[in-house]
Amino acid sequence: MTNTFFGQIDPPQRLLMGPGPVNAYPRVLRAMAADMLGQFDPEMTAYMNETMALYRNVFMTQNQWTFLVDGTARAGIEAALISLVEPGAKLLIVSAGRFGLLLSEIALRIGAEICTLELPWGQVATLEQIEQALITHKPQVFACIHGDTSTTMAQPLEGVGALCRKYGVLSYADVTATLGGMEVAVDRWGIDVVSGGLQKCMGGPPGSAPITISDRAAQHIMARRHVEAGIRGANTQDGARPRIPSNYFDLAMVMDYWSEDRLNHHTEATTMLYGAREAARIMLEEGLPARFARHKSAGQAMVAGARALGLQVFGDDAHRMTNVTGIWTPEGVKGEQVRAQMREDFGIEIGTAFGPLAGKIWRIGAMGYNAAKPKVLLTLAALEACLAVQGYKAQRGAGVDAAMATYS
Amino acid sequence: MTNTFFGQIDPPQRLLMGPGPVNAYPRVLRAMAADMLGQFDPEMTAYMNETMALYRNVFMTQNQWTFLVDGTARAGIEAALISLVEPGAKLLIVSAGRFGLLLSEIALRIGAEICTLELPWGQVATLEQIEQALITHKPQVFACIHGDTSTTMAQPLEGVGALCRKYGVLSYADVTATLGGMEVAVDRWGIDVVSGGLQKCMGGPPGSAPITISDRAAQHIMARRHVEAGIRGANTQDGARPRIPSNYFDLAMVMDYWSEDRLNHHTEATTMLYGAREAARIMLEEGLPARFARHKSAGQAMVAGARALGLQVFGDDAHRMTNVTGIWTPEGVKGEQVRAQMREDFGIEIGTAFGPLAGKIWRIGAMGYNAAKPKVLLTLAALEACLAVQGYKAQRGAGVDAAMATYS
Repeated sequence: MTNTFFGQIDPPQRLLMGPGPVNAYPRVLRAMAADMLGQFDPEMTAYMNETMALYRNVFMTQNQWTFLVDGTARAGIEAALISLVEPGAKLLIVSAGRFGLLLSEIALRIGAEICTLELPWGQVATLEQIEQALITHKPQVFACIHGDTSTTMAQPLEGVGALCRKYGVLSYADVTATLGGMEVAVDRWGIDVVSGGLQKCMGGPPGSAPITISDRAAQHIMARRHVEAGIRGANTQDGARPRIPSNYFDLAMVMDYWSEDRLNHHTEATTMLYGAREAARIMLEEGLPARFARHKSAGQAMVAGARALGLQVFGDDAHRMTNVTGIWTPEGVKGEQVRAQMREDFGIEIGTAFGPLAGKIWRIGAMGYNAAKPKVLLTLAALEACLAVQGYKAQRGAGVDAAMATYS
Repeated sequence: MTNTFFGQIDPPQRLLMGPGPVNAYPRVLRAMAADMLGQFDPEMTAYMNETMALYRNVFMTQNQWTFLVDGTARAGIEAALISLVEPGAKLLIVSAGRFGLLLSEIALRIGAEICTLELPWGQVATLEQIEQALITHKPQVFACIHGDTSTTMAQPLEGVGALCRKYGVLSYADVTATLGGMEVAVDRWGIDVVSGGLQKCMGGPPGSAPITISDRAAQHIMARRHVEAGIRGANTQDGARPRIPSNYFDLAMVMDYWSEDRLNHHTEATTMLYGAREAARIMLEEGLPARFARHKSAGQAMVAGARALGLQVFGDDAHRMTNVTGIWTPEGVKGEQVRAQMREDFGIEIGTAFGPLAGKIWRIGAMGYNAAKPKVLLTLAALEACLAVQGYKAQRGAGVDAAMATYS
C-alpha cells in the first residue's frame, strides 16, 4: 500500500477546440453536483421522464422511446446495433471514415452479415447511391454516421428514412458529433434509431448516450425481449425473435426500465442523467434555430480565418460539418509541434487525425459551449503564431480579421 | 416542440439508507464539477494512471490492469464475463440471489455453457461445496457475487482463488456492493477478475465500474484481442483465440486504451473518472481498516437496534454483509406503507426486496458516506415511529438506545 493519494482534481484551464470532448457548459457541471436520489424515488423517475421529453425536442421527434444509454457515445451505437441487428442479418453500412469502420467493427462482433457502401474518406453518399446499395444488397438494416469527425463531413440524411422504408429496411444513424450543433431531424428524416453523445455539441461530459427509437423499431426490439430471471413477474413476457446477445445493451430491457413499469435493469447513472438533462435544457432555451446558426457561424468564421492564412480546408464546402473543420497541415510545417505549442503556450487543444488522414490534417472544432466568436478568434490568433514559429509565411492577423469579418 | 423545459436539477434532500445508490460524498461531487480535458492531454492520462494506482490499493492488489469500465456496475460484470468466457466455454456460477441470476443471464447471452452451484437465497457456499462443484463440472471459468444485496449475504472468498487455480479455472467475483465497505482482498483471495461500482460503499454516483485483472487473466483476454480497423497500426496485433463478441466491452481494447500505447477506444468518461478517483482518495485517506470498521459498527448498530425493536434480522450473523441489513416485515405491518412514510415524513429511503423475498423483508443499508452513527440512529428513530403508526408494538426508543449502546 502506497502512502500517496495524489492531489485533488484540479485540471489546467484548457480551451478544447478539437473534435471533442470539449469544455462543458458550467451549468451542466453545476447540475451534476446535486446529490443522489433512490432510483425508484418519484423525484428520480420524474427526472427520467423529463429527460425523455427534453430529448424528444433535441432529436426533433415524437418517438415515445427517447432516453439515455449509460455509457459513452460508443455504448449508444453498440446498444442500437446489437438490439436491431440479429445474428446473421444483413446490415448495409455507409463506410466513409473511421466511425463507419466502427459500425462494421461492432456489427462483425454481433455476427451480422455486413455489406458496405464504400466511399473515400471525405465523401458522402448520394440518395441514388444509397438506393442502389439497398437494391443490390437487400439488407435488413441500414446504418450510417451523420457527422464523422474523422473526415469532418456530414452525410445528408434527408430522404434516407423514406428510402429505407420503401425497401422494408430498418435504419440507424449515429449523430454523436452533430447532436446539439447541426439539425438532427429524426422524424423528418424517418430514421428509426438515432443515438448520440453529450461531449460534443451538447456541451456535456462523455459518459451518457441519448437515443431515440421509432415505434416500428421498438416493436422489432421488443420481439427480442427476454426478461431477467431475477425480476420476472406477471407483467413480463419474452418475445419470439432471437434474444439480444447482451444484457447491458438489451434495449428491450432498458425500455422496460424507462417505462412506467420501471422493471429494474441497471441503476441509472444519476449524475450523468442530471448532466444530460441540463445540457438539453440549455439547448432548448437557446432554441434550435439559434443553436444551429451559432455553430454554423463559428464554422464559417474558422474556415474563413484558415483560408485567409493561406491554409487549405479539407473536403467540399457543401458537405462539411459546421462544427469541426479539417485543415491541411502545410508543407514544411510539423503538425504535432503546432498542436503541442498551441496547448503549451496558449492552453488551446486542437485535434490530430486518424487513418489515411493521420499526420495530414488538423481537426479544429467549435462545438457547444465553444461554438462562440471569442473562442474561434483566439484559436485563429494562436494558430497563426504557432505557424509563424514553424517558418510558415502568412500575413499576420489575416486569419483573425477574416473571421471577424464573417460576423459583421 | 413544447415550450416548457422544466426546472433546474434540485432534488429533495434524502437520506438514502437502501441497498444503493446512497448519498455521495460531497468531495466526490465537487471533484466532478471540474471542467473537461482532452482525452490524450498529458493531464488527463496522468489522472487515468493515478486512478489505476488508487484502485490497486482499493482492491488490495498489485494487478497492473486495474482501471474503470465506463458504465454502471452491471457494465463491469458484462465486460468481465464477455472478455473471460468464450462462447461454448463452461462457466460455473454460485447462484444464491438475484445477482447470481444476473451472472447466468449475462452468460446465457454470451453463449456460455452454464452450470450452477444453487443455494437457497440467504445461504453462502462453503469451500468444500465449491471444490466439489469444480470437480463435478470442470468449468473453464468460475463466477460469483461477493455481497449480494438481494439477500444481504457475503460469500466468503478466502481460499477460493487458490481452489480455482488448483483446477485450472479462471475466476471472477462481483464486489459492487462491498467495495469500499468490506475487505476486498483481491490478491489474497487470488481471484482473477474483480469488478465493482461506485454507488454503494465507495460513496460515488452510479456510472463507473472499477475493475482489476490478474496477469494470467489479462493474458487470456489479450489472446482474444482484435484491433479496430480504424486505428490499426504497427503496434497492433490480433490474438489467436475467438474474438470478444462486443466492442465496447472488449477489455483487450480497453486495456490498450489504458496502457501507455493509448490506443483510442471510447472517450473516457471524464467526469465519472474524476468522481471515481476522488472516491478512492477518500477511502485511502481514511485507511482501509478504519473504513471497514466503520461499516461494521454501523451494521452492528442497525442489527442491535432492529432486534431491540423486536424485529427479526434476515440471514445468519456469521455471513451477513456489514453494510446492508435485511429485516423481516413483522406480521400485520404493511411494508410498503412503512417505506412510503419513512420517505415522506422523514426523508429517509430504505429498500424493498426482490424474488422470493419480495414483500417479506426490508433492506436497510449503511454504506460509504452513510455508514455513520447519526444516520443509523436517525433511521432507527424513524423506523420505530412508522412501525407504531402500523400498530406494531415495541418499546419506544428501544431501537435507538440499543444502537447507541453498541457504539459505547
